Amino acid sequence: MSLESHYPSNCPFCRISEAYPASSGTPIPSAPDPTLVDPNAFVILSSDHVLAFLDILPMTTGHVLLTTRVHHEKLSEVPIGPTAQALGYWMPLMSRALAKTLDVEDWNVVQNNGIRAAQVVPHVHFHFIPRYSEGRRPPSKKSKGDTFEIKSWKMFGRGQREELDEEEAVVLAQNIREALKQEVEALEKDTAKL
Amino acid sequence: MSLESHYPSNCPFCRISEAYPASSGTPIPSAPDPTLVDPNAFVILSSDHVLAFLDILPMTTGHVLLTTRVHHEKLSEVPIGPTAQALGYWMPLMSRALAKTLDVEDWNVVQNNGIRAAQVVPHVHFHFIPRYSEGRRPPSKKSKGDTFEIKSWKMFGRGQREELDEEEAVVLAQNIREALKQEVEALEKDTAKL
Ligand SMILES: [Zn+2]
Ligand SMILES: [Zn+2]
Ligand SMILES: [Zn+2]
Ligand SMILES: [Zn+2]
Repeated sequence: MSLESHYPSNCPFCRISEAYPASSGTPIPSAPDPTLVDPNAFVILSSDHVLAFLDILPMTTGHVLLTTRVHHEKLSEVPIGPTAQALGYWMPLMSRALAKTLDVEDWNVVQNNGIRAAQVVPHVHFHFIPRYSEGRRPPSKKSKGDTFEIKSWKMFGRGQREELDEEEAVVLAQNIREALKQEVEALEKDTAKL
Repeated sequence: MSLESHYPSNCPFCRISEAYPASSGTPIPSAPDPTLVDPNAFVILSSDHVLAFLDILPMTTGHVLLTTRVHHEKLSEVPIGPTAQALGYWMPLMSRALAKTLDVEDWNVVQNNGIRAAQVVPHVHFHFIPRYSEGRRPPSKKSKGDTFEIKSWKMFGRGQREELDEEEAVVLAQNIREALKQEVEALEKDTAKL
């Protein structure tokens, strides 16, 4: 075990988890305040077992992280039970919400374990990274020259990442939350039909 | 929908799914015959909802794919229900089994959706890619010079991949199956204690 896992209060994802507890109603908060943590968090999902928020150094527009509420360093440490189940449940739903919000057909899901696998924050998380067609400007983006074009990412390098534009992040997170809510509601309708 | 999803018999992962049906007993087969499909498949897991087998073009020793039994092209198409649940269940267990079998502490989990995300086989699958420390030779490998050292992988390139050595693959798959069985048995003991 690393030092970090003994001191999860030093863990940036644990700080987000503490600042955004699961509400008793919906797992998708309505208008969470980004300033409850520093750096600000643009939270999309806050359930009993998992959270999702925008990556603060996005590789592309709409780069989202899905993580466990409780601190586990690696995927192997995620207990079999509700947390593992929640990951299985939200991964397809988050994919659908991102595809619709960003009007994108291609994306990577990447989960890194350990320093040699390029894990930076030692709290298990899945990256959802939209891949836009070349020359296409993502819908929620202001024009900024070529800086938001798709960038190649080396698994072992840091890639080219820029800090999240906070004004855009507010709108983006709001749009993804709305799409995710619709996906959950569509599921509930399907279940009601049975 | 692409042509492939209408003709899943052309899909290499659907061929594996058909050749290795779920047995009524354990989801981890004892000694599955690799020659039931061409190219040969080194199956590790064959449950009602998911399968796992060695990648035939491994990036590193022990590169495993976890896929759905039924053909779905992208993660967004995986239905919420037993299949999504099975992915959540097996991802931590497969991680534990690989870490123990290969004596490795670092690995990537990568799931690509669409051509711009480097998806090659249009049937949803998660890559489990062990990352060995530099200069360390993976335990099950015969010495072959530097060819099995860790290689850098570019998400958008094909990376350097070599065909699986079939003799080694038989042993490797067997070892991973045994470790996975132990993980499942440990869970069952935990549950029995409750
Ligand atoms: Zn943490
Ligand atoms: Zn990360
Ligand atoms: Zn298929
Ligand atoms: Zn693949």
